[in-house]
Amino acid sequence: MNKTLLEKDAEHLWHPYTPLINKRPYAEVVSAKDMYLHLADGSKLMDAISSWWVNIHGHGNEQLAKAVQSQILELDHTLFAGFTHKPAVDFAMNFLRVVACDQSRLFYSENGSTAVEVAMKIAIQYWKNKGEERTTIVALEGAFHGDTFGAMSVSARGLFTEAFESLLNPVLFIPFPDGTNDEEVLQQLETYLQKHPVAAFIYEPLIQGTGGMRVYTPELLARMMDVCAKYGVLTIADEVMTGFGRTGKKFASHYAARKPDLMCFSKAITGGLLPLGVTTCTKKVEEPFLSADMHRAFFHGHSYTANATICQLALTSLLMFESEACQANIARISASHQAFVNKRKSHVKIKRIESLGTILSIEVQTNNSESSYTHEIRHFLYDFFIKKGILLRPLGNIIYVLPPYIITNQQLEEIYAAVDEMLIALP
Amino acid sequence: MNKTLLEKDAEHLWHPYTPLINKRPYAEVVSAKDMYLHLADGSKLMDAISSWWVNIHGHGNEQLAKAVQSQILELDHTLFAGFTHKPAVDFAMNFLRVVACDQSRLFYSENGSTAVEVAMKIAIQYWKNKGEERTTIVALEGAFHGDTFGAMSVSARGLFTEAFESLLNPVLFIPFPDGTNDEEVLQQLETYLQKHPVAAFIYEPLIQGTGGMRVYTPELLARMMDVCAKYGVLTIADEVMTGFGRTGKKFASHYAARKPDLMCFSKAITGGLLPLGVTTCTKKVEEPFLSADMHRAFFHGHSYTANATICQLALTSLLMFESEACQANIARISASHQAFVNKRKSHVKIKRIESLGTILSIEVQTNNSESSYTHEIRHFLYDFFIKKGILLRPLGNIIYVLPPYIITNQQLEEIYAAVDEMLIALP
Repeated sequence: MNKTLLEKDAEHLWHPYTPLINKRPYAEVVSAKDMYLHLADGSKLMDAISSWWVNIHGHGNEQLAKAVQSQILELDHTLFAGFTHKPAVDFAMNFLRVVACDQSRLFYSENGSTAVEVAMKIAIQYWKNKGEERTTIVALEGAFHGDTFGAMSVSARGLFTEAFESLLNPVLFIPFPDGTNDEEVLQQLETYLQKHPVAAFIYEPLIQGTGGMRVYTPELLARMMDVCAKYGVLTIADEVMTGFGRTGKKFASHYAARKPDLMCFSKAITGGLLPLGVTTCTKKVEEPFLSADMHRAFFHGHSYTANATICQLALTSLLMFESEACQANIARISASHQAFVNKRKSHVKIKRIESLGTILSIEVQTNNSESSYTHEIRHFLYDFFIKKGILLRPLGNIIYVLPPYIITNQQLEEIYAAVDEMLIALP
Repeated sequence: MNKTLLEKDAEHLWHPYTPLINKRPYAEVVSAKDMYLHLADGSKLMDAISSWWVNIHGHGNEQLAKAVQSQILELDHTLFAGFTHKPAVDFAMNFLRVVACDQSRLFYSENGSTAVEVAMKIAIQYWKNKGEERTTIVALEGAFHGDTFGAMSVSARGLFTEAFESLLNPVLFIPFPDGTNDEEVLQQLETYLQKHPVAAFIYEPLIQGTGGMRVYTPELLARMMDVCAKYGVLTIADEVMTGFGRTGKKFASHYAARKPDLMCFSKAITGGLLPLGVTTCTKKVEEPFLSADMHRAFFHGHSYTANATICQLALTSLLMFESEACQANIARISASHQAFVNKRKSHVKIKRIESLGTILSIEVQTNNSESSYTHEIRHFLYDFFIKKGILLRPLGNIIYVLPPYIITNQQLEEIYAAVDEMLIALP
């Protein structure tokens, strides 16, 4: 008796963020094309969250596939210590041009967590190389920066971190700027910078992702960055979720009047096909490392750092992202989301609805508990949309739509209509 | 005036483990095939270290490339929460079969550092889920487990970690078993396990890689694991470097009489084309997680966890690795290395020469300082072999040969001959 794929999966695979006894059966994906995941039972699902915010050009894009297919036979991979190659340099030059923000140097790794760890380590060693002992980091309450120990330490304490609390470095958290507490946030930040040897302030610019798709203003961000500048504290923009058009502009940091010292990227950077993390910094940040002394060198690396195949893929995706067609799609989706927000703003079953660029988030009103990641309503919401053929993955009682940029107006309307039906069906 | 690729690289790229002012020019790789990297100046280099120990089947392998090329258009990627797919399940089933060691469940990530962080987190939460507060980890002096904060904390303190020491979790280190101190090592381990709430013991089985390619015996490893078993402490085998035939057997853990509770893999797992990390564990380890309660779930994930394209590549590479031809190559290289070691054992300029399977390491005698990663002789050694057309990347005064398994006997002889010439030329 052969076991089915789902039985083997249940017995031997460990899925992310999922209890091992999972009462909700996994769906088997057999193929994916454009907006759709095709399942083993013959049905299809619209991937309205870009497979965890990565797949900006849709699935099975032939231009991206071709970049991988041809590069992998030419130069698959080489170690990046002592060697370099055109895909790594070409991507870096183009990427630094598009990111702008005075970012001048680039370090490659494999995912968002490592991109954040690299930024944290560069920021801390920056001070050491300058002869100052500054190791404290300030972050925002509700933040999510990743799951490795360093990235966990600057993320909100809670369900994700509770098993590891005693092992996380002390980090100073300032309140999330929710629109009512600007002066308090700024005052708390300033107090921390006065009293502690702070190396850096890390933040998700303009919107917290996993923390509930909560938005704050570019003005407040610039004011927080002003406070950091006053105390010489480095700023680290974690653009892992916000990068590549998600917030309407190419990068969320482009909204703010001040430029970050370091930036972290991953997720959509390859168009969602293969993993890549990137950390960038300004000339100011690299300056204390400009030495031939091994004790001032940055000791970090992964075997696949600057993998040639993935660099070539990322370059191809970047040029597609920059194209007029893609930028027009981003503007179109942003306008469409905004119109829907305006229409539903005072809906009785909606606690909060907002959009930022191509991100639409809706916190639904429930009468039995506070908003949270584990809110029991999440199963109702997930199943409701799956039945409609749409993949949305709620953060508790918060649903968000974060589509590939190839989504059509008709497909957007299909999602909005399903949201309206959900609001009616909401228990 | 357009800048050259190398000028752009020097200005904008940050290479791993390399000072920003790098007096040694980078070599530009334009293509790679089988044993060779082809450089922009028309020369070629034999990749005798498998591009940092990853490229076991050589470069530009058409069967591996084909696996990527066909999978990427079928199902490039999908999120792995709520979904599964054949490449992830097929790889897991085959991999657990080959790894054996009672490993029963598998978690996907992207590199060796994350594979180690996942193992550490599972081990710590294992105790929490069982209601015991055990968070201390024991490691071996000289260890290298990666560069993220958690992985750094269980690695040797030194050049790699000195900028971050105050932020690393306290870890208990036992001496490296160098063949003269077995009882001391075991006694220190036992003392730690008696006095501290130890969650796990992490080690590179049989050989430390970055720590200097130092070998210890399976007997001593089994005795250390016996001590851990006595105190119920989990064992974590970091097979990132030692896996996939490097030590002669398929996995280094196969040498020891006891089986580890958790295992970490990366590097050669994809045949060196694309990044993948994997953590496995036994049924005993998963047991306290077998619950539908979110508070007992393991909260870890990366966007590209179980990327379908990379899983399919890893499956193809695994089947190639298992083939008779590949296993015969591993045996052939192992015998060849051993014969060379026997012939050069008492060479006056060799401080230590040993082989373990396909790994050959030689510590050269120098009269001016201790062995270390930054030993000045490393530039002489690196350049000497590069001039001979062979890429070796010394760890200070230690050179190692860790070739792709497709290396021919003639190519092996070419390396050994270059080693002999180096010994004559050694200052």
